[in-house]
Amino acid sequence: MNNSKDKQAYEHVIEYIGQQVEEGRLKKGDKIPTERKLVEILEIGRNSIREALEILDMLGIVERRQGSGTYIRKDFDSWFSGPMSIAFMLSDTGKHEIFEFRNMIEVEMATIAAERITDDEIEELKDCYEKLINIDDEFINAKYDNKFHSLLARATKNIILINSYNAMEYMMDMLIYDVRTRGILSEGKDLLVRIHREVCEAVVERNPVEAREAMKRHMTEVRKYFE
Amino acid sequence: MNNSKDKQAYEHVIEYIGQQVEEGRLKKGDKIPTERKLVEILEIGRNSIREALEILDMLGIVERRQGSGTYIRKDFDSWFSGPMSIAFMLSDTGKHEIFEFRNMIEVEMATIAAERITDDEIEELKDCYEKLINIDDEFINAKYDNKFHSLLARATKNIILINSYNAMEYMMDMLIYDVRTRGILSEGKDLLVRIHREVCEAVVERNPVEAREAMKRHMTEVRKYFE
Repeated sequence: MNNSKDKQAYEHVIEYIGQQVEEGRLKKGDKIPTERKLVEILEIGRNSIREALEILDMLGIVERRQGSGTYIRKDFDSWFSGPMSIAFMLSDTGKHEIFEFRNMIEVEMATIAAERITDDEIEELKDCYEKLINIDDEFINAKYDNKFHSLLARATKNIILINSYNAMEYMMDMLIYDVRTRGILSEGKDLLVRIHREVCEAVVERNPVEAREAMKRHMTEVRKYFE
Repeated sequence: MNNSKDKQAYEHVIEYIGQQVEEGRLKKGDKIPTERKLVEILEIGRNSIREALEILDMLGIVERRQGSGTYIRKDFDSWFSGPMSIAFMLSDTGKHEIFEFRNMIEVEMATIAAERITDDEIEELKDCYEKLINIDDEFINAKYDNKFHSLLARATKNIILINSYNAMEYMMDMLIYDVRTRGILSEGKDLLVRIHREVCEAVVERNPVEAREAMKRHMTEVRKYFE
């Protein structure tokens, strides 16, 4: 299983199903063609077809019903970020790449979060901020710092952004711990408290203009402690 | 298989392996704990462990060696974007979300692409641009337009960015086709040729400052034809 020949075959099946979804021929709850039919259409061996369907099943995209066939799931939700995060780590994705990507999205993300954040999310963000500034263990703080930014990503309600952000989750812990440690060594903890407080207050007040400015200041400060 | 209870169980396994990778205890080529050991550590049923390993195998993260065990792959490369793209489509990710995300990244992406693009990639970009402006079929043009931007993503060499961009691939086709059609109806094809030519020339000349400005103009024009 999983030699490169097979891989190409089942990627092909996934591509085919993707096209059908794209063209509106397959929707939530629809039955997909039988294995036999897919063999005919795609001219790929039955084993590869079966593997592709297994992957889509495990990823929560399709479900098999005993004696009935394979269907596009109705209660679809994406949870790719775990395996993708591992993939990024293994592919030698560096801190530099994460930082570069964060620089592209954080400012706009904070702005949109301030526009769309719900009351419940505001409570969660405030709670996260309180923990972030009151706990003395820097290892735990790095996790709350990471969570603080993830909550902003989630508040945007943009699933592409949320997914991309979550995929960096594991690696962000390390990056944030490093940068925080440098920042504290150089200027003490007040700086870190301040840059998060300013973002938190602006988002809690649902002020997108101030959220943008506060996140710009946050990223400018962080940049100093990122080698 | 794949009811929500199982799902939580194997997500847990994936999380465990992620942590091991994060902490440097598992690296490329390393053997991961046996199924029996994972059952002990995680207190999860053997079937769920097996499913999690199967997923990681199919996703190309681990490989099983007959009679020897399961190893982190050495020849790792990520190919999540296919299934993830389907996932986005099925989760009712809208054109608005894609457009919002593109607005965050396209300008910076063009800037970095201009700095890092290789000679081969320049040839590919020029070739793509030539096809984009010389083909009369707007359905095919939308695909070349999509490819044009994907090539810029690829030229950044930032795998997080590339992966996030690729995940939108299927949906981008539709978005781009729509926006192009509106733009052409309103101002003719010259506009579309111009905004791509300016980006193409700046990137080919490896001029990041001009690439940034050209992509800003591109996105401003596109915004007009995006409802």
